[in-house]
Amino acid sequence: MAENIEKPYVVGMDIGGTNTVFGIVDSRGNVLASDSIKTQQHEDVNEYVEAVCAKLVPMIEQFGGPSKIKGMGVGAPNGNYYSGTIEFAPNLPWKGVIPLAAMFEERLGVPTALTNDANAAAIGEMTYGAARGMKDFIMITLGTGVGSGIVINGQLVYGHDGFAGELGHVMVEKDGRICGCGRKGCLETYCSATGVARTAREFLVARSEPSLLRNVPAEEIQSKDVYDAAVKGDKLAQDIFQFTGDMLGRALANFIAFSSPEAIILFGGLAKSGDYIMKPIQKAMEDNVLNIYKGKTKLLLSQLKDADAAVLGASALGWEVKES
Amino acid sequence: MAENIEKPYVVGMDIGGTNTVFGIVDSRGNVLASDSIKTQQHEDVNEYVEAVCAKLVPMIEQFGGPSKIKGMGVGAPNGNYYSGTIEFAPNLPWKGVIPLAAMFEERLGVPTALTNDANAAAIGEMTYGAARGMKDFIMITLGTGVGSGIVINGQLVYGHDGFAGELGHVMVEKDGRICGCGRKGCLETYCSATGVARTAREFLVARSEPSLLRNVPAEEIQSKDVYDAAVKGDKLAQDIFQFTGDMLGRALANFIAFSSPEAIILFGGLAKSGDYIMKPIQKAMEDNVLNIYKGKTKLLLSQLKDADAAVLGASALGWEVKES
Repeated sequence: MAENIEKPYVVGMDIGGTNTVFGIVDSRGNVLASDSIKTQQHEDVNEYVEAVCAKLVPMIEQFGGPSKIKGMGVGAPNGNYYSGTIEFAPNLPWKGVIPLAAMFEERLGVPTALTNDANAAAIGEMTYGAARGMKDFIMITLGTGVGSGIVINGQLVYGHDGFAGELGHVMVEKDGRICGCGRKGCLETYCSATGVARTAREFLVARSEPSLLRNVPAEEIQSKDVYDAAVKGDKLAQDIFQFTGDMLGRALANFIAFSSPEAIILFGGLAKSGDYIMKPIQKAMEDNVLNIYKGKTKLLLSQLKDADAAVLGASALGWEVKES
Repeated sequence: MAENIEKPYVVGMDIGGTNTVFGIVDSRGNVLASDSIKTQQHEDVNEYVEAVCAKLVPMIEQFGGPSKIKGMGVGAPNGNYYSGTIEFAPNLPWKGVIPLAAMFEERLGVPTALTNDANAAAIGEMTYGAARGMKDFIMITLGTGVGSGIVINGQLVYGHDGFAGELGHVMVEKDGRICGCGRKGCLETYCSATGVARTAREFLVARSEPSLLRNVPAEEIQSKDVYDAAVKGDKLAQDIFQFTGDMLGRALANFIAFSSPEAIILFGGLAKSGDYIMKPIQKAMEDNVLNIYKGKTKLLLSQLKDADAAVLGASALGWEVKES
C-alpha cells in the first residue's frame, strides 16, 4: 500500500455469521483499536449499520476523524467487489442484495470497498503476511467452510461478475457428500472443520478399532476433538487428518494446473493442526501435480496474527479504495 | 492491438508435432501469406530454424522486409512466455530447453515472443475472434490433447513460472485413465479426440448392441468415425458424445468456480461435432455449476477460421512484443 501521511489509517471490518469485528489499522499492519457486535441481533440492515457506527464512529474520532482514514475495507460472505453489495448470503440475517459499501460510505464519510472474506484474507496476506512480494498465489481458508482468494499478476481475481474464487465448491468427488450449496462432492464437505467432523463420524461407524473419539458423542464431535486425539497418538484420528489432507492436496494439485501459483497459503483453524494435516496435504499435492510444476509451488501457513487476521485482511482493502 | 502505420504486419508461427505453419498477418486478421515445413524432419534445432527462414525470409521481404513487421508470435507445445523457450516438449524433436524466441529474433531481426499453443489461440480469439472485448474468458482447445488459455482482467494467465493453464491435466477421475503425462484421470484422457476414440473402444467392449462403429477395426477408430456414426443415428456413437460432453461440462463447472469467466470458448475438431457434443457439455456445465454462477457463463465456439487459426492465434502475440 502507499504510505499516506495525511491519511495514515484504514478501517477493517469482517462480517461473520456470528460476530462483526472492526478496527483501525496503520500502514504497518498494527491493529490500533478494535471492537465487535453480534451480527445476528440486527435483522434490519439499517439498524445493523447504526449498531456498528455507534462503536466505530467514536473509535474513528479517537484517531482524528474521517479525514485521517484512507479508506474502509469490508470482508463479508458473498461480498461482491464490483457492486459493493452482499448478495443472498445464506448465513447473514439480511435477504436479497444489500448495498453495504455505499451505506457505510455515506454514514461514515469514508471511501469503502467490500469483498468476500477469503478475498480479504488474500489481500491481507499480500499486504502484511506470508505473500508479501508475491504476484501469484492462492489463499485457502479452512474454517466452517472452505473459502479462497486467488491473486494473479498481483491482482485479486474477481471474474466477470465479481464472484470468482469459490474453490471450496469445486467438486472433488462425483456423487460425493451433500453440500450446503445443494450440490454434491464439494471440497468443503471434506476439508472444512465440519468436513473433518463428518469424516470422523463416518470412520467411527465404518471401523471397529478403539479410539479416543468414541468417548465423544458422535453428534458433538468437532475437528478440535480429532486434533486432541491425534496428538495423543490416536491412530483413527490421525487417519482422519490423513484422509482430509489427501483430499485437499489432490485438489490443490488441480488448482496449480490453473494458475501455477508461487505459493498456496492455508489459513484457519484446521491449518493449525500441524504435521498431522500439513504432511498429507504436501505429499498429495506433490504426488498428484503435473511434472512441470513439481517442487515449484510452496505450501505455506498464513502469517496473519489470529486475533487480528479478520480485521487486518479487510483493512488491507482500505488502502486501495478510490474516493468516489 | 495498436494500429501501426509504419509496421503494419506481424508474423505468426505455430509449431506442431507434425507441421510448422507460419504467415504474415495484417491488423484486421487477414492472413496475407502463409507456408509450412515438416517439424519432424529437422532433428537439429539450428537446421530447423534455417529451414523455416528459407521460406519465411523471402515472405517477409515480399511485404517490405523486417522494418514493416511489428513482431513475431510463436505458439508451441510447452512454450514459456517468460523465457521464450520450449522446455522438454514430448512431441517435438528437440530435447531440453530450446531458446527459440531468441533464435528467431536474432535470425530475422524481428522482436519475437513465444507461448504455448493454447495461450496463442486465446490471444488470437481475444484479438480477432469470439472473445473480442472480453476481459475474462477461458479457451479450451480440443485436439489430440486438451489445452487451455486463461484470460483474467484482459491478461493471459502465465503463473509465476510461465506454465499456468494446463487444464487438460486437471484430474477429473480418481484412478482414472492413464495419461501421457504419467498420471491418471486427466481431463484430456476423456475429452480429447484420442479420449473419444478410447471411450468408443471401451463402450464397444462393455455393450453388446449393434453399432456402425463395429465395422471399424477397434484399433483404428477415430473421433471422426464416432461423429459420422452419430450423424447416421447410431445410438452408441451418440452416447459416446454424451459421456464425453458430460465429463467436459462437469470440469468446466469447476473451472468457473476458479475465475468466473464471461465465456468458455471451445476450439478444435471435437468442438465441431455440433449438438451431439455441445448439448451435453452445456447441460452438464449448467447442472453442476454453483448457484451464483448459473446462466452467466457463455459456452461459445471459436470464431477463428480453421485454416488460418494457428497462424492467426500466434500472430496476435506479435502485436504485443516489446522490442528488446
